[in-house]
Parts: sequence; structure tokens; C-alpha cells
Amino acid sequence: MADLPGEELHALVSRLYPITRSITGQGVRQTLEILSSVAPLRIVEVPSGAEVLDWTVPPEWNLREAWIRGPDGKRVLDVRDHGLHLVSYSVPVRARLPLSQLRPHLHALPGQPDAIPYRTSYYEPSWGFCLTQRQLDSLPEGEYEVCVDASLSPGQLVWGEAVLPGESDEEVLVSAHVCHPWLADDNCSGMAIAAHLARRFAALPRRRLTMRFLFAPGTIGAIAWLARNRERADRVRHGMTLTCLGDAHPFTWKRSFAGTAEIDRAARHVLARSGLPHQLIDFFPYGYDERQYNSPGFRLPVGSLMRGRHGQFPEYHTSADDLSFVSPARLAESFAVCSSILELLQANGRYRNLHPDGEPQLGRRGLYRALGGTDIPGLQFAMLWVLNLSDGSHSLLDVAERAGLDFPAVRAAADLLLQHGLLAPA
Amino acid sequence: MADLPGEELHALVSRLYPITRSITGQGVRQTLEILSSVAPLRIVEVPSGAEVLDWTVPPEWNLREAWIRGPDGKRVLDVRDHGLHLVSYSVPVRARLPLSQLRPHLHALPGQPDAIPYRTSYYEPSWGFCLTQRQLDSLPEGEYEVCVDASLSPGQLVWGEAVLPGESDEEVLVSAHVCHPWLADDNCSGMAIAAHLARRFAALPRRRLTMRFLFAPGTIGAIAWLARNRERADRVRHGMTLTCLGDAHPFTWKRSFAGTAEIDRAARHVLARSGLPHQLIDFFPYGYDERQYNSPGFRLPVGSLMRGRHGQFPEYHTSADDLSFVSPARLAESFAVCSSILELLQANGRYRNLHPDGEPQLGRRGLYRALGGTDIPGLQFAMLWVLNLSDGSHSLLDVAERAGLDFPAVRAAADLLLQHGLLAPA
Amino acid sequence: MADLPGEELHALVSRLYPITRSITGQGVRQTLEILSSVAPLRIVEVPSGAEVLDWTVPPEWNLREAWIRGPDGKRVLDVRDHGLHLVSYSVPVRARLPLSQLRPHLHALPGQPDAIPYRTSYYEPSWGFCLTQRQLDSLPEGEYEVCVDASLSPGQLVWGEAVLPGESDEEVLVSAHVCHPWLADDNCSGMAIAAHLARRFAALPRRRLTMRFLFAPGTIGAIAWLARNRERADRVRHGMTLTCLGDAHPFTWKRSFAGTAEIDRAARHVLARSGLPHQLIDFFPYGYDERQYNSPGFRLPVGSLMRGRHGQFPEYHTSADDLSFVSPARLAESFAVCSSILELLQANGRYRNLHPDGEPQLGRRGLYRALGGTDIPGLQFAMLWVLNLSDGSHSLLDVAERAGLDFPAVRAAADLLLQHGLLAPA
Repeated sequence: MADLPGEELHALVSRLYPITRSITGQGVRQTLEILSSVAPLRIVEVPSGAEVLDWTVPPEWNLREAWIRGPDGKRVLDVRDHGLHLVSYSVPVRARLPLSQLRPHLHALPGQPDAIPYRTSYYEPSWGFCLTQRQLDSLPEGEYEVCVDASLSPGQLVWGEAVLPGESDEEVLVSAHVCHPWLADDNCSGMAIAAHLARRFAALPRRRLTMRFLFAPGTIGAIAWLARNRERADRVRHGMTLTCLGDAHPFTWKRSFAGTAEIDRAARHVLARSGLPHQLIDFFPYGYDERQYNSPGFRLPVGSLMRGRHGQFPEYHTSADDLSFVSPARLAESFAVCSSILELLQANGRYRNLHPDGEPQLGRRGLYRALGGTDIPGLQFAMLWVLNLSDGSHSLLDVAERAGLDFPAVRAAADLLLQHGLLAPA
Repeated sequence: MADLPGEELHALVSRLYPITRSITGQGVRQTLEILSSVAPLRIVEVPSGAEVLDWTVPPEWNLREAWIRGPDGKRVLDVRDHGLHLVSYSVPVRARLPLSQLRPHLHALPGQPDAIPYRTSYYEPSWGFCLTQRQLDSLPEGEYEVCVDASLSPGQLVWGEAVLPGESDEEVLVSAHVCHPWLADDNCSGMAIAAHLARRFAALPRRRLTMRFLFAPGTIGAIAWLARNRERADRVRHGMTLTCLGDAHPFTWKRSFAGTAEIDRAARHVLARSGLPHQLIDFFPYGYDERQYNSPGFRLPVGSLMRGRHGQFPEYHTSADDLSFVSPARLAESFAVCSSILELLQANGRYRNLHPDGEPQLGRRGLYRALGGTDIPGLQFAMLWVLNLSDGSHSLLDVAERAGLDFPAVRAAADLLLQHGLLAPA
Repeated sequence: MADLPGEELHALVSRLYPITRSITGQGVRQTLEILSSVAPLRIVEVPSGAEVLDWTVPPEWNLREAWIRGPDGKRVLDVRDHGLHLVSYSVPVRARLPLSQLRPHLHALPGQPDAIPYRTSYYEPSWGFCLTQRQLDSLPEGEYEVCVDASLSPGQLVWGEAVLPGESDEEVLVSAHVCHPWLADDNCSGMAIAAHLARRFAALPRRRLTMRFLFAPGTIGAIAWLARNRERADRVRHGMTLTCLGDAHPFTWKRSFAGTAEIDRAARHVLARSGLPHQLIDFFPYGYDERQYNSPGFRLPVGSLMRGRHGQFPEYHTSADDLSFVSPARLAESFAVCSSILELLQANGRYRNLHPDGEPQLGRRGLYRALGGTDIPGLQFAMLWVLNLSDGSHSLLDVAERAGLDFPAVRAAADLLLQHGLLAPA
């Protein structure tokens, strides 16, 4: 598997973490700028008010400051201390009000008294603050001063994409949402891994498939991309969303709508052969942006790779999803798995045995000797399997699955047979 | 599930029970008359001698009296005491003969010494009596007088059918055999439930599918119906035979020939979600009239719902299948299951998501608020699933099965989406 | 199942065993002559140098003598003592050389010190001797005299085939390799059983399918046959290679490439109903000549029946595979299984129910009485199943599998229905 020091990934996560991002605004721009230092990103803008599929791009939200002062005049909350303190997309407010009137605007988690929850209000004009239950319980009665100095005004929805052209214009789409503030696993981990994947594959000499790495705000970003790229979407043959890839949970591959797409089989093969604990689950129409890609009007074969599952771990969407929740080792593991899936897709051709009648005489061509000199396990069997299945209808992954062999061994066998003129692309 | 007091069903079973029915004759007419008091039956007659498929309608059999007098002149058996005492379709006889010559005409069950067996001889001209083993053992030697005062003469084969027109001329067929005398479970239970289903669905405002409730003598009745209704048979899209539905056994759904018909899936869904013990078994070409409907020349997708299974419980085809063997509670349960299966079929449309590209913005339409105000579990997920799968090729049952949701929740979600213009019939 | 005394099979194995066969030469001719005493073999020759698919027929190898004399002038090895002592296809040599120079030409099995290994060098010109590890360890230092008096010269590749014409020119192919010397299980057992199968089926009156029994050298023989019989190969509808059928291992059926060919299902049915321990394994492109028949240019549906599996038992390809390793009882069992598979294929027709609408009235035709008079279990159910499934698309094996009945019962039911004009070939 591909090797990238987990520390490099964690360092990038650490740079991305403390930014008060939302679905629009400077936070997203700053995030894309950081990612541009790793991957060759092109920035795309769509103006507020633009109609994208069934949605409308909202006004751009920019925040200057947001805080609450207590009865004693001291700041009890400041978004500078933690980006989750403010409900994302809060409308501007400047007011003095008693605790009783403030309370409806305060959000905490009674069951996790030390964690700040993550809340948003993108499409309902309202404002609010988030804090720990412990802090909420300690607030004295009295009058509070509240300040949300934010603007909601015509601007842009922004995303970044890195495209690596291949021999074919058929595409692999790798998509990571970039809107969540101050959450390390969800989704600084996905952004960091996607960016490094783009860097790695940009450096590889030969790519069969075009690759697109998309860094967009959740839901509205994916919807806007789909609205503006219908013809490109038609070329997406494989895809995955990346999220929550730095924590210590086992891997989960959430299948595409069909469940039997090539990327579903590639993910299954790589995970099964990785020796790492994992599970495969069927598609369902909630979660991350795979729900948009798999909608009936598109049905792009996009699955989702994650460790912690959407809504199913206590740190999910709270301040406990911080930099200590993600580790270099897990990030490196996740990167290696993603990289292997993409390598497999790039290498998964279909071939034709040029001597399909009986077995070709391998001994005469020195291919038995060749076998002696190699240490790729299973290469001999792999050659016989590739010859037998290369009738134009089986991909190398088909061969690996049917033969019970590792994909790299099958790929190596195919390369050897290609060199000896026994095989040709189908 | 639909609610009908079991007592009402049991009362109907009790009226149907003590009639000495056979495949033709007054017993069937009387039975259909009773059923007409519940369901809007049309009576159909086919004359004796008519050729129906590979069969010929037999002469009509009518019975006046049948008894045996012992050596002391007293009646030892009388069909008035129990309809099973006479072999059905016995030819007329009036004779005096010693016990040794009478014995070959007497049928009992050595293994169930207190039960009278049920025997027939429709197509072999013969006569016989059935009695308990205990009674048989107690018969003294001597001369017996035997009387079967019956007529076999040109007449009619008779059946009843209730047809409830729907928006489509595609049909659901519900079929119950009406020939067995003095057997409560087999098949007064099936007749009673089918008649009440007809009454219930006749009262419902909107039916997609036409419904046909057929009350016919076993084998020859189904064959005659098929012979006389070939073009109607072509319109049967779903069907089930109902039998033995008042006893305490778990439910059995016997699949149609294909095993994957919509009604097979509907029955599986309803039974699985009912919480009631049940099993699903594959089609086999013996049992009740499903064997005729599924014959290779018709292959109608007709399954069979039962509790006690054909030939597999000791009371089967004996006098132990009496009114105490069936209970109001079990009849009510069976009615509810049948009703749910039929409701599901009626409601199992295919729809098209009118905003198939990405997810429609539900918040803007107040559908998130709508969700808060309802208490149908799973409705929110159901809406997302209906939207995702409504590409014209999936029925609502497909949605329910894939989503792991109850059909009524999926149906409710579809109704809500229809109201908001997000869905249209496919 | 068919009955042939195992002793008769073992006697044939014993005659075939002590011949120093190879892929060409007098050993093969002598072997085919012995087989001709049982089966009506035609001998086919292909000259050395002929191009067959991707291969070239090698020169014919004939051996006069081969031995080694020790330093004391006594023979320490002689191929007359055991045919495995010489590496098959050794080039001629006559030399005196010290033990150190002889050693690289000596082959033994350190892990099985009492067994002589079987080695070949068909396509690399070299020579060598095989002996037990114990013997090798006991060789004193000194000068040895080596003699391989063999010829490699233009000649013939030879095979035998017995063809039994059937009503159709669609063929069943039974193939056994005939090249291994002095190995009883691999493959004197396969040859003996195939020859006796040919004899048995030649004696049967009516054959639907043409049967071809092929006795050819491994790999090059199958390849030459395919090269010279392309149009015949196109008619092969079912096939199996027979090997290692006299040992005490459970049966293994190795499926054809497709895995769902009729012969795969026939083998599964016969083995499952035999009560004998067995396993079914998927095709893989190594093993015996099934690898050639299933190559992508032919894809003949040829499976393989064996007991001991290729390379997976310690006696495999050693002198321990001798006459005591195979037993009359196991050979007889294997013959019976093969015979049942072939009988099933011969009898596995498709029929059409001539009264497909509803059930035909069996009573009127005396078929219920017929049932009483027979003792074939399941015949009554078999008749109903055959009637129901005989819509032209189901074979009798389909009926047996779906009904859970033995094939012979289904076949008997079909014969009865044919006699009564209720069935016709589809």
C-alpha cells in the first residue's frame, strides 16, 4: 500500500481545524487556500441567488465577532475561543436581555456536559450560541449582552477542484465536504486525505482514468456542482465521499446505490485484503453528499469511506471531535486504503488472451523460468487465471476475485503476459 | 391492521358448518346463499356433462337421507347426525346385508378412534359410510339395513363470485373452496374470511385493482372457472387461496409457482411485520386450487394462505375439525393478515420523483415541520427513501423492503410527497 | 446405480500399472492396446513436429534400458525395477562420473524417504533418475556408470477414442489421461473406469447423446485432439475428466468454467443422492485436461471427477500410488457414480405437458390405480411435478431438483405420462 507519513496528514488537519468555516464565506476560502498548498486546486464561484437544481444559493455569510457578556460585564462566551460557540449562519444581533430570554438561544448537550454541540441554521434566519452544559448551568441570573457581528449579503458559494486528466475522459470522483468548523475528524480528515491523494496521483506517470477531487460545502456545494456540471457528471464512472477518516473506529464502506458498482467491488477487495477491521453497508439516502450523487436524476456510482459513522459516535458534531480525536496512524491507514482503491480502479483493465485455444506453451517463452526469479506470491497461478479469464469480458478485478488472489499479483501477471505478447487490451 | 370482531367471523363459520355439502347439489347452493348475506355474490352455473378443460362436469348429487339400521332395527348411523357419516357422492343403495359384507363400505381411523374420517368418491360410482373406530368396533354381527337415498342426475355445477371493479381491470383473485361438509377449519374459515373481505373492500372508496372473490367447489370448480374465464384469467395479477384459517397453528404462506410474485412479497412483508409466527414455503403442485391456477397453461401468480397445513395436522379431514377447533381470535387475526395483504396490493403503486436531480429542498416546503407534527414512525426516512427510489421502476413495496420500513409508513410518506407536488404516479 | 464388480476394474488397473508410459512411445501404444480389449477404441496418430494450437508435437520417445551401476559395478538402479526410476523423456546418456557429478541428476523426497518421486522433462532436453531418499543417502562415494538408452526421433503422438453414436450428434466427452507410468490411482483408475463405461454404454439400446471416450496423453494429447477436432469440439455439450478414482478419499467434483453446466448439476444431484461423502469445488485453470477444454477459445462444459485431489495427498506422483493404494470397492463406487451421471445426461430430456390447462384428470386414465401397483417411491408426486414443470423449458433434472426427488423416480413418472399421451418431447 501507498506510504505517506501520518504526521504529514495530521499537520494538515491541524492547519485546517481552527477555522470558523460555514457553507459560504471567508472560512471556506481560507480552507481552500490551505488545501491549494497540497493539491492543484481550481476555485469555482457561484453567486448568491443562483438557482441550482431545486435549491437557491444563499447569501454569503461572513463573521467578524460573536460573544456574550455576563451581568458582570465579562465575556462568558467568545467564538474566538471555539468556533462551535456560534450557531453557524446566525443572523446579526446586538442586544441586552435577561437570561430567561437568552436561554432559548443557547444550546448544550445534557448527556455530554463537557462538550459543545455543533449547530447550524442555514435556511432559517435565527441566531444562537452553543456551550457546554456545565457552563450553561453556571450562568447567573441577570442581564446579558449579546453580539453577533455577521453579514449575510450577496456573494459567492465557493468550491475547489483538482482535475488530473487521464487517457480516458471517464472519471473517478473523490469528494470531501469543507463546511464544518472546528471538527477535526468531520471533516478535516477527509479534506487532508483527499488533498494528499490528489498530490500523489498527480505525480504518477500514467493514468487510465481522469480523476477529480472535489472540495465543496456539504449539500449545497454538491448540488451546485451537479447543477453546473451535468455533462461532466455523466462521465463519472466511480466515486467516493471521504469523511471521518482519522478516528480509531473500524472502516465502513457505504455502498453506492446499485451496491455492485466497480468501486464497491474495489473497496471490498482492498479492505478485505488489508487485514484491517471493516464492514460493508448498503446505501441509504441520508449521510453525506453521496446522497446527492446517487439521487435518481444522477445515480452516479459513488460510495462513501469512513471510520466513525455519521451520527453514531459520541464525539460526532461536538467539540470532542478535536485534534486529539484523530491520530497520525489512523490517517495514514486511511490514506493507504483510499490510495489502493484508486490504484486498483486505474489498473483495472480488460484484456484478451491472444492464444485462447488451450493453454499457450509458457515454457517455450521462458515464463516458467521468469516465475522462478520472482517473489510476488501467486504469480504463477495468477498468469493461468489471467489467461483463462481474459476473454474480453472480465476485468483484472474479476480475475482477482474469482481466483482469490491479491489484485497486485494479478496486475503483475497481466503485465508479464502483455510483455510476452500473450495478452492485449480488450 | 383491519379490525373485524372474531365473533362475527365465528358466527358465520357456525352457520356454514352443519351443511352436507359436496361438489354439486343443494348443499353448495345453500352455502352460497348464506355467503350472499355478507358478500355481493353472483351465482354461476355450468351444466352436467359440460367439458371443462380436461374434465367433464359430473351429474348433480342430491341427498335425501342416508342411514344404517342394525340387527335390532335401530339406526346405528344417520347422516343427519353428522355430515361426514356418508362418503360424499355415494350412489343410491337400499339393501340388507350381513356385517361381513357391510365392512368393506365402512371407513374409520384406527389411529384416531374417536374421529369420523372424511371420504369422497366423486368419479368412481360407489357408496360408503364413515364412523369412529370405536363405533365400528362395537358393531354386533348380524344383518344390517343400508339406505342411501341420493340422486345423481343432470343438473348444474354452481359457484359464486363477487367482483369489485377497480380503476384498472387488472385483478386480484381471492379463492376459497366451498365443497367440504361439516369441516369448520377446512373450509368454513376460508369462506367466512373471503366473504367478509369482499364486504370490507366493497365499502372502501378507492380501489386501484379489480377484486374477484371466488367461492367454488374444489378442483372441478376452479377448473370450470378457468375454462369459462380464460380472458379474465389473463387479467389476474395477484391471487391467493384461503383455507384452514381458524385454527391455532402459525401462518403458512405457500408461494406461487414463480415464488417472487408481488403477492408473495406482499404476504412476506405483512407476515414479517405482523409479529405473528409464520413460515414461507415454496409452491408444490398438490394442495388446494392454487395447483390449478398455477398449472403451466395458466401460471397465475396465486399463492395460498393457511394456518394448519394441508394433511399435516391430526384434525385434518376428520370430525375433529369442528366448531371448537376454530376460534374467534384466530379468525380475526387471519382476517387482519389477509386484509393487510390486499390493502398493500391496492396501494402498491410506482411513482416518479418530480425533482429527481439531487434532493428537493424539503425545508422550504415545510416538510421538516410536517415531520415534527406526525407520529408515524420512520416517516422522515420514508420520505427520503421514496424520493430516492421513485425512478419509475420501484413500487412502494420495493421501497419498504429496501428501506426496512413498514409499508404503511412508506405509503404515508408517498401521500405527503404527492400532496406537495414532489411525486407523481409513474 | 450401475453394478460392475470392483475386482474387474482392479484387474484392469493391474494390467495397466507396470508400463513405463510417457506422452509418446511404445508405452502409450501398449496401454491403448490393453484398453482396446474392453472398449471399442480407434487409434489416432499425429506426427512429431505437427503444430497443434500453440504447441508442437515433440519427437517420439522410446526407451530400451536405463540404469546406474555403482563403484562396485553392481546396478544400484534399474528402470525395469520401477518405471518411476527414470525421469520421463530423459535424453540418451552413457557416461562414467563421480557421485558428486551424478547427484544433480538424482531426485528424491526428503520428507517421504521411502517413496520414489515422479519427474518429467518433456520439453527441456535433460536426463535424470529418481529414487528413495533412503537409497540416495546410502550411495557410497566413487565412480558410477550411467546408461539411458532411449531414442527421441520423429514418430507419432497417439491417442485412442471410442465413439458411441446417439440419436443426436450432441456429445458427452469422457476424458482420461494415459501418460503417467507406474501410478495406479493417477491414472490407471481413470483409464479403467472410462474404458468400462464405454463398454457398458455401448451395450445399452438407446442413447440420446453421442458419447466420446478419449484416452490421450495429458496436456499435449488434449491440445492435439482439440486442434484436430474443432468442429467436433463444438458439439460437446457435457464432459468430464476422470482421474484418481480408486483411492479412499471422498469424491470431489470440480465444476466446469461456468459452474452451472448441466453436467455440474448432474454430478451434484448424483453425488448428493448417493449418500457418499463428497465435495463440490469451483473450476480453477490448473489440474488435468479440463484446463484445456475450458480454455477461453473452447469453453467446453467439462468438469472433473476425482477422489484424491491433484497434488493434495502424500502418495500423489510417488511410488506410493501403487496397486495397494487403489481398491476394488472404491473403483466400483466410482464407476457407479460416473455411470449414474452419464445415465442422467442421456435421460435428461425436456417435455411438454399436452394438457397444460389445469391438471389432467389422472383418475379417468387409471393413473391413480397405476400408482398403487408400483413401488417406486415418490412416483405420484413425481407425476404431478412433471406435469406442472413440463412447459418446454424445464428438463427432468430441473423437475428432480425443484421437487426434491430422485432423478430415476422423475424419469419413471415421465415415462408413464408419455405412455398415456399426456406428455411429448419438447
